[in-house]
Amino acid sequence: MLEVTSIKKGIVLDHITSGNGLKIFNKLMLDKVNYPVVLLMNVPSKQMNRKDIIKIENNIDIDLDFLGLIDHNITMNIIEDNKIVHKKKVEIPQKVNGLFKCHNPRCITNFDDYVKPTFQLVASKNLEYKCDYCEELTAYKL
Amino acid sequence: MLEVTSIKKGIVLDHITSGNGLKIFNKLMLDKVNYPVVLLMNVPSKQMNRKDIIKIENNIDIDLDFLGLIDHNITMNIIEDNKIVHKKKVEIPQKVNGLFKCHNPRCITNFDDYVKPTFQLVASKNLEYKCDYCEELTAYKL
Repeated sequence: MLEVTSIKKGIVLDHITSGNGLKIFNKLMLDKVNYPVVLLMNVPSKQMNRKDIIKIENNIDIDLDFLGLIDHNITMNIIEDNKIVHKKKVEIPQKVNGLFKCHNPRCITNFDDYVKPTFQLVASKNLEYKCDYCEELTAYKL
Repeated sequence: MLEVTSIKKGIVLDHITSGNGLKIFNKLMLDKVNYPVVLLMNVPSKQMNRKDIIKIENNIDIDLDFLGLIDHNITMNIIEDNKIVHKKKVEIPQKVNGLFKCHNPRCITNFDDYVKPTFQLVASKNLEYKCDYCEELTAYKL
């Protein structure tokens, strides 16, 4: 049914947790691009029951830490000449560099524009990160 | 390339003006459903250069006035057993029933919950509608 034939050259984000597809599509600002992009939601999957897929007919730079933070189920496939030339399962990043804000309102990263927040992973289960500046714990939410 | 094989049963919204696809996807709240849906953006098109397409693997009720208001380029195809059984080009609606608000802040439809705004088309070019209650002109914007 709703199958999409392979793209010639570009990126396929596969095994996205069902329901996360549109959020990732928006985060990557794919509605603003001028090359073909496809969002598939609730596609039947043996492994996951249902999954979302994003296909991007262009070679763009995607931050793997960012993807791993959003949804560590994702597999990223790089396509060239209709073939997968590279396949990578994303991972929850151990260190995060400026992808979200520290929850501590008094943390220097929240009022000094020149200090970018950086964090270390404390607990994978709930994506809990410790701020390098104030040691406050922040759980990342998509 | 990014072609999508036909769906078995459901609805295909074709010839969506490039760039409008995600807005319509959101308006139809297709990110909240549990059946397969596909959004294609910037698909090459002979007729339109680039177009967006939405495929819905389910028979849902879509308000044609609503689609006509949003994007009158759209063709709606009803699919059954992998075949198009009904094809309809949407049109800009002559009358509109409660799909947007009257721009006149003093119009009764804006402070009485029991009075639904209704409008008559005045100018197709900029989707200008006249309120049935206060005669104020309101141009619809997606």
